[in-house]
Amino acid sequence: MERQGQPRIRLGMVGGGEGAFIGGVHRMAARLDDRFALVAGAFSSDADRSNRSGAALGIDPSRVYDDFTAMAKREARLKDGIDAVAIVTPNHMHAPAAREFLRRGIHVICDKPLTASLPEAKKLAATAAKSDALFILTHNYTAYPMIRQAREMVAAGDLGRIRVVQVEYPQDWLTEAIEATGQKQASWRTDPERSGAGGCVGDIGTHAYNLARFVTGLGLEQLSAELTTFVEGRRVDDNVAVMLRFDGGARGMLWASQVAVGHENGLRLRVYGDRGGIDWAQENPNALTFAPFGEPPRRITRAGPGAGAGAGAGAVSRIPAGHPEGYLEAFAALYAEAADAIRAHAAGTAAMGLLPGIADGVEGMAFIDACLRSSSRNGAWVSLAL
Amino acid sequence: MERQGQPRIRLGMVGGGEGAFIGGVHRMAARLDDRFALVAGAFSSDADRSNRSGAALGIDPSRVYDDFTAMAKREARLKDGIDAVAIVTPNHMHAPAAREFLRRGIHVICDKPLTASLPEAKKLAATAAKSDALFILTHNYTAYPMIRQAREMVAAGDLGRIRVVQVEYPQDWLTEAIEATGQKQASWRTDPERSGAGGCVGDIGTHAYNLARFVTGLGLEQLSAELTTFVEGRRVDDNVAVMLRFDGGARGMLWASQVAVGHENGLRLRVYGDRGGIDWAQENPNALTFAPFGEPPRRITRAGPGAGAGAGAGAVSRIPAGHPEGYLEAFAALYAEAADAIRAHAAGTAAMGLLPGIADGVEGMAFIDACLRSSSRNGAWVSLAL
Amino acid sequence: MERQGQPRIRLGMVGGGEGAFIGGVHRMAARLDDRFALVAGAFSSDADRSNRSGAALGIDPSRVYDDFTAMAKREARLKDGIDAVAIVTPNHMHAPAAREFLRRGIHVICDKPLTASLPEAKKLAATAAKSDALFILTHNYTAYPMIRQAREMVAAGDLGRIRVVQVEYPQDWLTEAIEATGQKQASWRTDPERSGAGGCVGDIGTHAYNLARFVTGLGLEQLSAELTTFVEGRRVDDNVAVMLRFDGGARGMLWASQVAVGHENGLRLRVYGDRGGIDWAQENPNALTFAPFGEPPRRITRAGPGAGAGAGAGAVSRIPAGHPEGYLEAFAALYAEAADAIRAHAAGTAAMGLLPGIADGVEGMAFIDACLRSSSRNGAWVSLAL
Amino acid sequence: MERQGQPRIRLGMVGGGEGAFIGGVHRMAARLDDRFALVAGAFSSDADRSNRSGAALGIDPSRVYDDFTAMAKREARLKDGIDAVAIVTPNHMHAPAAREFLRRGIHVICDKPLTASLPEAKKLAATAAKSDALFILTHNYTAYPMIRQAREMVAAGDLGRIRVVQVEYPQDWLTEAIEATGQKQASWRTDPERSGAGGCVGDIGTHAYNLARFVTGLGLEQLSAELTTFVEGRRVDDNVAVMLRFDGGARGMLWASQVAVGHENGLRLRVYGDRGGIDWAQENPNALTFAPFGEPPRRITRAGPGAGAGAGAGAVSRIPAGHPEGYLEAFAALYAEAADAIRAHAAGTAAMGLLPGIADGVEGMAFIDACLRSSSRNGAWVSLAL
Repeated sequence: MERQGQPRIRLGMVGGGEGAFIGGVHRMAARLDDRFALVAGAFSSDADRSNRSGAALGIDPSRVYDDFTAMAKREARLKDGIDAVAIVTPNHMHAPAAREFLRRGIHVICDKPLTASLPEAKKLAATAAKSDALFILTHNYTAYPMIRQAREMVAAGDLGRIRVVQVEYPQDWLTEAIEATGQKQASWRTDPERSGAGGCVGDIGTHAYNLARFVTGLGLEQLSAELTTFVEGRRVDDNVAVMLRFDGGARGMLWASQVAVGHENGLRLRVYGDRGGIDWAQENPNALTFAPFGEPPRRITRAGPGAGAGAGAGAVSRIPAGHPEGYLEAFAALYAEAADAIRAHAAGTAAMGLLPGIADGVEGMAFIDACLRSSSRNGAWVSLAL
Repeated sequence: MERQGQPRIRLGMVGGGEGAFIGGVHRMAARLDDRFALVAGAFSSDADRSNRSGAALGIDPSRVYDDFTAMAKREARLKDGIDAVAIVTPNHMHAPAAREFLRRGIHVICDKPLTASLPEAKKLAATAAKSDALFILTHNYTAYPMIRQAREMVAAGDLGRIRVVQVEYPQDWLTEAIEATGQKQASWRTDPERSGAGGCVGDIGTHAYNLARFVTGLGLEQLSAELTTFVEGRRVDDNVAVMLRFDGGARGMLWASQVAVGHENGLRLRVYGDRGGIDWAQENPNALTFAPFGEPPRRITRAGPGAGAGAGAGAVSRIPAGHPEGYLEAFAALYAEAADAIRAHAAGTAAMGLLPGIADGVEGMAFIDACLRSSSRNGAWVSLAL
Repeated sequence: MERQGQPRIRLGMVGGGEGAFIGGVHRMAARLDDRFALVAGAFSSDADRSNRSGAALGIDPSRVYDDFTAMAKREARLKDGIDAVAIVTPNHMHAPAAREFLRRGIHVICDKPLTASLPEAKKLAATAAKSDALFILTHNYTAYPMIRQAREMVAAGDLGRIRVVQVEYPQDWLTEAIEATGQKQASWRTDPERSGAGGCVGDIGTHAYNLARFVTGLGLEQLSAELTTFVEGRRVDDNVAVMLRFDGGARGMLWASQVAVGHENGLRLRVYGDRGGIDWAQENPNALTFAPFGEPPRRITRAGPGAGAGAGAGAVSRIPAGHPEGYLEAFAALYAEAADAIRAHAAGTAAMGLLPGIADGVEGMAFIDACLRSSSRNGAWVSLAL
Repeated sequence: MERQGQPRIRLGMVGGGEGAFIGGVHRMAARLDDRFALVAGAFSSDADRSNRSGAALGIDPSRVYDDFTAMAKREARLKDGIDAVAIVTPNHMHAPAAREFLRRGIHVICDKPLTASLPEAKKLAATAAKSDALFILTHNYTAYPMIRQAREMVAAGDLGRIRVVQVEYPQDWLTEAIEATGQKQASWRTDPERSGAGGCVGDIGTHAYNLARFVTGLGLEQLSAELTTFVEGRRVDDNVAVMLRFDGGARGMLWASQVAVGHENGLRLRVYGDRGGIDWAQENPNALTFAPFGEPPRRITRAGPGAGAGAGAGAVSRIPAGHPEGYLEAFAALYAEAADAIRAHAAGTAAMGLLPGIADGVEGMAFIDACLRSSSRNGAWVSLAL
C-alpha cells in the first residue's frame, strides 16, 4: 500500500495535542504508507498547547492554529492548503469542526462516534451531502484483514443464510471511578457534555454494532437494550446488553462493558449461518476461525495458505503471514484507502469503496439513541430512528 | 473418592437401554469410584429390549423389568432391593418414574430437566417433600473441580461484589433437521410431548442458567427472553437469548443455541465483580482464568500450584494436575457425593452438601417456563413462577 | 466399550496400597467399562498396610496378600483365581513380580518403564516369550483417541513422507529437592535403586519416545543425548535433551524435564511430513491440529464432524464430541482393549491389536540405556542395544 | 516514540527496490515515528529498476543511484547528504555496501545476518571499529515489548538461576522446492553465493539464537548441531537442530525449520529458572506467560495492569493494552532507538542502549559457522570461533 509515485496528500489535524491518545494513532496511521503529509493543525484550543504540539511535530508555525474555524478559513485560501483534515477531538466537537472544513471543500477524516447526539449527526450529514468533499469515519476495526475476509466469506455465501450474530466488546479500564481522579481519557468519555448521552454504548458499543453490520451486511430491524451504570457517581452507562433482530430473521446479542475485569480490548465477533460459522477476536486479529458445517474448523490467517485469505484481506495486508499485524496497521489501511478515495475524487471518480462514511456515522448515532430509548423504556423493542 | 470399605450402594436404573446416550454415562459415573453396584433395571418399556440390555450389563434376569412401577414395587420388597435408582429416560417420564420410587423410600438420582412442565415439577417436589428418600438431580457441570473453585472464590469475595454474568452454551448438532431423519436423540429432544415445550432452552439453556446460579449464588429477579426456531418444521426453539436481572443489581446475558455451527458443547461462564473476573469453559475444564483487578490474569488449574485450586476443587479431583479430567469424572463426582449423602442419610444425618436437588429442578423448570412466557410476550420482563 | 454380557475378568493387583497414585488410576481404569473385577491383591509388602488397603477396596480378606509370590502361587491354584494381575509397584519390582505371574499363566498388565535396567528387561522378555500369558504395558498415552487418529493419519499418508518429529514432556514438580522432604512419589522416582539409573528420562522421557514411535511407526536409527541434573544432591537426571535420527532420514528432537517451571504434564507431539503436519498436546487431548500443506490448519476433535476423527479414535471414545474425555478415559481404553485381548486369547485367537506389549517395554529400557550411554560419552550418537 | 521537535534524520537505502520484501518493512518502520526522512537510495544495481523505485517513493531523481559506492561517495559530499543508510540487500552484499558508508562516517542500519561468512563479518567489524559511525543490526524481534519485559525479568532475578532454554523457529514456506520456480525470496535465500553457506540456520536460526541470548544474557559455551536438507536439490539446510550449553551450566535446545508444515513464523522462546519460567511466541507477541514456581501462571500483557509490563516494555510500546501491536511496531521501535542513538552520537554521547550492533552480527555469523562445523563433524560439540 506504500505510495507509488503519487504526491502526498496534505493533511491537517484538529485535536490530538499533548496527552491525547487517538491523535497519535491517526498520525502513525497516516505516515505508515507515506500517503499523507501532516502540514497544519489546530491541536488544541489553548494556543500555547497547540503551538507546543505543532513544534514537536515539526509543523510550520504559521500553520498551527488554536481555532479550527480560523484554520479552515485560512487553509482553504492557501495555495498549498490542506487537502484533508483529521478530526480527533472529543465527540461533541466533531460536528462543529467538520462543518467548517466540509463547507470549504476540504475532505474530513473523522473519529467516531460521529457526534454527541443523533440530531446533530443528521444535521452534519446534511452538510456533508451538500459538500463536494469526502467524509470518512475511522471505524478502524473494519480494516483488519480478517474482517475483510469475514465480510467476503459472508457475501460469498460460505456461511449460508445468516441466523445468529454474537458480538461483544468487554474492557475493564472503567472498573473504578477513575474519572474522579482526573484521568483525561476517562474524564471526557464519562462526561455527557463532551461524549454524548451514551457512555460505554457510544465509546465501544458502536464499534461492536458497526462491525456486526459491516461483516454481515444485515440491516437492523429492532433492538432491545439495557444500559447499566455500575460505578457509583458515574454519569453514563458502563455496561450494555442488547438483543438484536436483523432483517430477514437473524437474531443477535451485543454486549459491551467497561467494567469487565480481565478484559483489555476484547472485541469479538461470531456469525453463524446454516452452512458455517466464523469467529474473530481483535486481540489476536491475524486469524479467523471458519467452521463449515460438518467439517473440522479451519484457522484462516492473513496472507496464509490455500483457500485462506482472499483478495479483500490481501488488499489491506502489508507483510507475509506469521508476522503479526495489529491495530495501527488496520488504522493505516483506512488512511491508505482514504488516500485512494481522495485521489479518485480529484480525478472525478467516486470511490469510497469499503470506507465507512457519514451514513455509517449517522447509523452509529441512531444505534446509541435507540439503545438509550429502549433502556429507558425497560427494554422495549425499538427501531433505529434513521 | 474411591470406596473406603463401605459397602456398595445397590443401584437400579430406569431407561438407558440400547442406543441411549446418557444411561451409559450414568453407569460409568457410578462405577468410577466403586461406590455403587448396578443390580436392577427397567431399561426399556419394551421387554425384549430391556432384557437384552440387562443381559449385556450382567444384571440378574429376575431383576430386569419392562415397567418402572413393577420394578419399584418389587425392589422395595426385596431384602436386598435397590437403595437408589437412576432415572435416565426422556424428560416426560422423569416424574412418573420418580414418584414410584420416592413413595417407597428409594433414593432417586434423576437426569435434568426435572420434568416436562413446571406444574408437574411442583407436584413432584411435593411428593419428594413427603418422602424420606433423597432426590438428586444430575446437574453434572456443577461438579467440575474448577466450577467448585469458582464458586468458592465468589463466596470468598475474591471477585468483590458481582456486577456482570455472561453465560453461553452453543452447540451445532441441530443445525439441520436431523429429527426428520429419525436420529434418536434429536427426535425426542425436539418433540414437545417427550421433551416439554422448551427445546434448546430446556436441553442446554437450563444447564447454563443452573451453572450461573451455582457459581454466583445470586437469585434471579427477572428475565427477558427471545426464543427462536431457525430450522424449518422444528417444533421447539433452537436458539435462546436471555437478558438477566439478578438480585442486588447484577446483570447478565445467557445464550444457548443448537444451530451455532462450529460449536460442539461450548458451555462457558464468565463472572465479573468489582474486584475481579473469572472465565471458564467446559471443553477444557481443567483451568479457570482469574483476573484480579489491576493484576495480570492467572491460570488456576485443578490440583495446581500455590494459591490455585482450593478445598472445593480438591474434593472432586482424582488425579494430579496436568492429567486432564473430563466430563465423566465430573459426573462421577456427583455420584460419589450422592453415595456420601445416601450413607449419611442412612446414618440419620442430612448431607446433600453441594448436590443439586429437587429445588434446583423446580427452578430449572421455572426458568424454562419464564423464558417461554417472556418470549411469547415479545421479551417482556418476567419473574420465575416459583 | 462397556461390557456386553461377557463375564468380568478377575483381576489382582500388586502394589497400589494406601498413598500410592498409579494404583488408584489402574483401578478406576479397570472399572470404567466394567470389564474387570478386582478380587485379590498384594497391595503392600507390609501386611497391615496391605490388609487395610484390601479392606478399603472391599476385597475378600483371604485374598489379600503381603507377598506377590504367595499371591501368584495361591491364585494360580484357586478355582476362581485371578485371570490377570496389574503390577503397579516402583519400577524395580516390576520384573520379579511379573515373572511369578507369567510363569503361572496369569496375564500381566504392567506399569512402565518395564524394569529398572535393560538386562532385566530382556530377561523378563524371555520369560514372557515362554509364557502363554499376555503381557500388556500401560503406555496409556497411546490410547488417547486423537493419538489413535494421528497414527491413522500418518499411516494413511496424510502427512506424506515424515521429515521431522518434535516431542516434549515438561513438568515442574521436581524443581526443588522434594525427595529430601520424604515426598513419596519423588523419593522412589529419584532413587536409582528403585527407579533405575534413569530419572526424568525413565519416568517421562520413555513416554515421549514411545508416543513418537507409536504415532509415526518410524524405527530409531541413532540418538544423541544430554542428561542433566539441576537440583543439587539429586541422584538422577531431571532434564533430558535428545536428538533423534529415524530410519529413512527423518530427524527429531525430544525434550523431557521435571524442572520446567510452569508445566504440569506438558506432553506434546508434533510430526511434519512433506504433505502435512500434526500437533497434539496431552493437557487438552480432545483435539488434534492437522495442517495439510498449502491449506488452513484444521482442528479435528474426538468424535467431531466430517473428515474428522476416524475409526481408530472412535474405537476408544465413549461420549459425544465436546464432552471432554481425559487421562482416565485413555487409561481405561487400554484396560478395555486388554479385556478384549484376554477374551480373544481365551478363545484361542491372538489379538494384542494396538496394545503396547513386552517389546515396547524392552525398547523403552533400551531408549533409557542409550540416552545414558550417549550422555556419558558427551553426546555421541548411539543405537539402541535391542 | 513520535518525533518531539527534533529534525528528521536523513536516510538512504541500499536495496529494497521493486519486489523486495524487507525494504518496504524498513521504510514503514522508519516512517512510523517520523524520525527519519528517506532522501536517497541505490534501490537496485539495475539503473532502470532503481529509478522506477525511487520515483515511486518520491525520491529526488538526482539522489537515486544504481551503485552504492557512487551513492556513498556523493552523499558524503552533499551538504544535506544522508546521515544514515539502511542496507537491505541479500546477505552477500551487506559487507561491501556497509564498508563504503562506514568509511565515510555514515551510520549503517543493516539487515541480518551480518554477512555471508564469518571471516567477512570479522573484517567488517574491524572496519566498523575504525569508523566513527554507528552500526545497527536489525535483529527486530529484540524490540518486541514483551521480549524487553522478559529480558528485564530475567535480569531482575524473577526466574532465579536459569536452567533450561528452549527456543524454536518453525516455518513451512520452503516445504517444496519453490526456489526452482524462480520465487525471488526463495531463490536468493537458498543460494549459498548470495545467502552464505547456512540456509535455514542463517535465515531464521540466527534469530532464534539471538533472541535466546538477548533475553537470558547467558553466553554460549558449546553447541552440537545437526543440519538437514530435506528438499531434494536444495543447496542449503532447511531444518536445524541444536543442543546448547550455556555458561554457568544452563542447557538449551534450538530448532529452526523451513519445512515444518503448518507453521508460518513460529518463533517461540521459553526460559526456565529455579524460581520461575516464561513463555513467549512471536505470532501473538502482546502477551508473555510468567509462571512463578508454586503459583498459577500469569498472563502479562504489553501495557497491561499491575505487576505486568515494566519500563522496558513501556519504552517500546505505542498504544494501550489490548490494541495489538505487531511486527512492524517492533521493527519501528528499533528505528526509533536508532534515531535516539544517532542523535546522541551527534551530541557526543554514546548510546546504543539495547540496540543490536556489530558484535551481535559477528556472533550470529559465528553461530552459523559453529553449526556448520558441528554438523559436518557428526554433531561434535564446538565453541563459537569469536
